[in-house]
Amino acid sequence: LTRYAVVGVGGVGGLYAARLHAAGCEVHLVARADAAALAADGLHLTSPLGDVHARLPVHTDPAAVPPVDVVVLAAKTTSPSARTAAAAVARRGAAALVLQNGLGVEAALAAEAPGAIVLGGMAFVCSQRQGPGRVAHLDFGRVTVGEHRADGTAAGVTDAVAAVVADLDAAGVGGAPAPDLVQGRWEKLVWNIPFNGLSVVLRARTDELVADPAAVALVRTLMDEVAAGAATQGRTIPAAFLDRMVTTTAGMTPYAPSMRLDFDAGREMEVDAIYGAPLAAAHAAGLDLPATAVLAAQLRYLDSRRTVSVP
Amino acid sequence: LTRYAVVGVGGVGGLYAARLHAAGCEVHLVARADAAALAADGLHLTSPLGDVHARLPVHTDPAAVPPVDVVVLAAKTTSPSARTAAAAVARRGAAALVLQNGLGVEAALAAEAPGAIVLGGMAFVCSQRQGPGRVAHLDFGRVTVGEHRADGTAAGVTDAVAAVVADLDAAGVGGAPAPDLVQGRWEKLVWNIPFNGLSVVLRARTDELVADPAAVALVRTLMDEVAAGAATQGRTIPAAFLDRMVTTTAGMTPYAPSMRLDFDAGREMEVDAIYGAPLAAAHAAGLDLPATAVLAAQLRYLDSRRTVSVP
Repeated sequence: LTRYAVVGVGGVGGLYAARLHAAGCEVHLVARADAAALAADGLHLTSPLGDVHARLPVHTDPAAVPPVDVVVLAAKTTSPSARTAAAAVARRGAAALVLQNGLGVEAALAAEAPGAIVLGGMAFVCSQRQGPGRVAHLDFGRVTVGEHRADGTAAGVTDAVAAVVADLDAAGVGGAPAPDLVQGRWEKLVWNIPFNGLSVVLRARTDELVADPAAVALVRTLMDEVAAGAATQGRTIPAAFLDRMVTTTAGMTPYAPSMRLDFDAGREMEVDAIYGAPLAAAHAAGLDLPATAVLAAQLRYLDSRRTVSVP
Repeated sequence: LTRYAVVGVGGVGGLYAARLHAAGCEVHLVARADAAALAADGLHLTSPLGDVHARLPVHTDPAAVPPVDVVVLAAKTTSPSARTAAAAVARRGAAALVLQNGLGVEAALAAEAPGAIVLGGMAFVCSQRQGPGRVAHLDFGRVTVGEHRADGTAAGVTDAVAAVVADLDAAGVGGAPAPDLVQGRWEKLVWNIPFNGLSVVLRARTDELVADPAAVALVRTLMDEVAAGAATQGRTIPAAFLDRMVTTTAGMTPYAPSMRLDFDAGREMEVDAIYGAPLAAAHAAGLDLPATAVLAAQLRYLDSRRTVSVP
């Protein structure tokens, strides 16, 4: 079993830290604001997989983390200091698992930890931080894991990917290997680009969007642009996959995307990672994504108008 | 002096009816819900040009309107029954002045009153209905007037245009001739397409939009699309005109566009006239306007979610 350090103990980081601990892994937490509560009372997880109360070593200084095999970056992309903390652990020999939204997140970590093995993880999960050290896991949990290559090629299922997937399976949340991380990231964007942004701009739940013909047509336009963006990176996303994403969403329990939760709480939204990076990647390859660009600009405007700021 | 019938006695119709009456024109009102209040108490206008209390003949049946020279259609495009009422007066020999937002509004009236002279009027005005028969004119008032041609060519300054412009000047609000109505309509869309829709979708005032770099960039993208749409109709809108629209808006008193007022009041928005018709005209000429189409779809979604409905 692998030894882990988890940077960012929110809804996502708290869930995976507690479940990996329950499966018998050694798990260290790297936290800032919640460090005192985590040290005093431990990590409390409520979950359909079984509640967990885990007393884990808590570190505020990444240099104090003992040697681990994998450091998990589970903070939002809007926290560059968390990335720097994870990179500090990775520079001392750990592989990094970037459990974040958007595109380019592995490259950003790799730039701060040259030579480290960097994995990307795409979590399909509904899990929320309720307070310091308190996480409520509501549904789903599977993480798709692939290994980053600086040249953008497919790494296949590497030893590091297989080891992390095995631990996630043992932890009960489930893991799946992505032999081509870039393909996996763009497939994830097929859902994230329409539903995250429209749920904010239109103050809509996903079930409200998929029930409205004008919204569905717009969702499909955005999905087509994501598929076209993937094509500029040499990846093919067939139309049937896009159709399936709409159908699956229609069958889902009404679900507030993470960006909507951030917006409602007055937190910074992940506009750069989810919109800016894909737009830039496509643009660099000569393709503009006009509908995606409209949504990105609208989100940037709304982000600039935040009056509440919860770190 | 010209004899007028005004269909739709709201913020726009009430202002021009009262001012034309004050200038000595014969003015008839055609109203529905407000007819009783207008007949009992008259039309009350507050205005920087001078308050007016006008006791005018009120008709609920357009067939009861005596012969007039011009029938003014001043109801929203979302009221097809008002257009039909105006057309009934125009079929009996009056010229029609379509004082509405968007594109294709003259053609829609012309289709119901074959052979009638049809004018288009573009009002730059801030005037609101306060209650039945009560209108508050806040600022501006100038109407640009051009004559419709079925083949889309420029009519020049016709006798009918000159007569109406002279009356608007006499009424103190000001009139200006548009020798090319199609050019005038697209120039008006340069402002209406970005600012109406974004003020609704982003819950923003115009001054908030022009103060934000992301919003200004999006406004400019939308304006560029409108100019490209105008080009498909053989009309040129120079970049300097677009720049001036942004600058002028930055210098304006914070102003809620009409679509935002409609949205906030739970009224149907003029999505077809302001967005649908220009998109269709450009599309028929082989050009899609992707950013405009995104905004139109968002507005259609929001329009479908209205829970309050005030006629």
